[in-house]
Amino acid sequence: MKILASFVLAAAAITLAAPAQAQFAKPEDAIKYRKAVMTLQGSHFGRIAAMANGRIPFDAAAVVENATVLEMVTRLPLAGFVPGSDKGETGAKPEIWTDTAKFKSVGEKLNADSVKLLVAAKTGNLDMIKAAVGPVGGTCKACHDDFRKD
Amino acid sequence: MKILASFVLAAAAITLAAPAQAQFAKPEDAIKYRKAVMTLQGSHFGRIAAMANGRIPFDAAAVVENATVLEMVTRLPLAGFVPGSDKGETGAKPEIWTDTAKFKSVGEKLNADSVKLLVAAKTGNLDMIKAAVGPVGGTCKACHDDFRKD
Repeated sequence: MKILASFVLAAAAITLAAPAQAQFAKPEDAIKYRKAVMTLQGSHFGRIAAMANGRIPFDAAAVVENATVLEMVTRLPLAGFVPGSDKGETGAKPEIWTDTAKFKSVGEKLNADSVKLLVAAKTGNLDMIKAAVGPVGGTCKACHDDFRKD
Repeated sequence: MKILASFVLAAAAITLAAPAQAQFAKPEDAIKYRKAVMTLQGSHFGRIAAMANGRIPFDAAAVVENATVLEMVTRLPLAGFVPGSDKGETGAKPEIWTDTAKFKSVGEKLNADSVKLLVAAKTGNLDMIKAAVGPVGGTCKACHDDFRKD
């Protein structure tokens, strides 16, 4: 499992670093793009969290499906925070562009946490899934606390 | 290549059919979700199309990255068109819910076309990529013509 996780992490790191992901014609396009990514992250993680919290019935296959999508979309948000997209219809704090290293680090952690959640999902073990849900939610919150306006 | 495509198609079909993808607390959540999916589809396909059309320089690795994301997100839109989400902030035509078989078919074709584009992307051959871009764009347009209000 560790080998799989390392492999997926490496693949994710390559994707996050790719400049081609960051091409937007206008800053508004980048803002719309990253909001779309957040919507999908919230939707797919929300379903897993609801199962982990017992709010909806546990469905192991559904956790894998949602964790698969989550792992993919958590590779995407950083690319949407291009220079110049700090103005406009956005709740992004200026710190994103002044403390870029920290922002990038938390963004990469979200994907790393999601990779671990996907690995846990594939075990089909609810306790392992619950243990992996916490860090993902914690990273969402940490990033929102530091880098999103209220 | 055909075997890979068949395998991925089968996997995609299973995902599309999964009811767990269709859980939204409110119709507005489903509308927001599917709009987010459309934004990502447009963004990632747009980058590939721009390279296929020579508007931006061809970058084989970037095509693979974007086609990978596109293949994943084209599995998602159908789940957003839940019953009751025909009202509100949406350009969805009623035909989506009255001619569901046709709508589902075109939605599944978009993913099938995107699988083929991903296979073509992995060859690194620009001519094969160009040939696979056309059907994806055609399916986008066909669905918008039939199922999206002007």
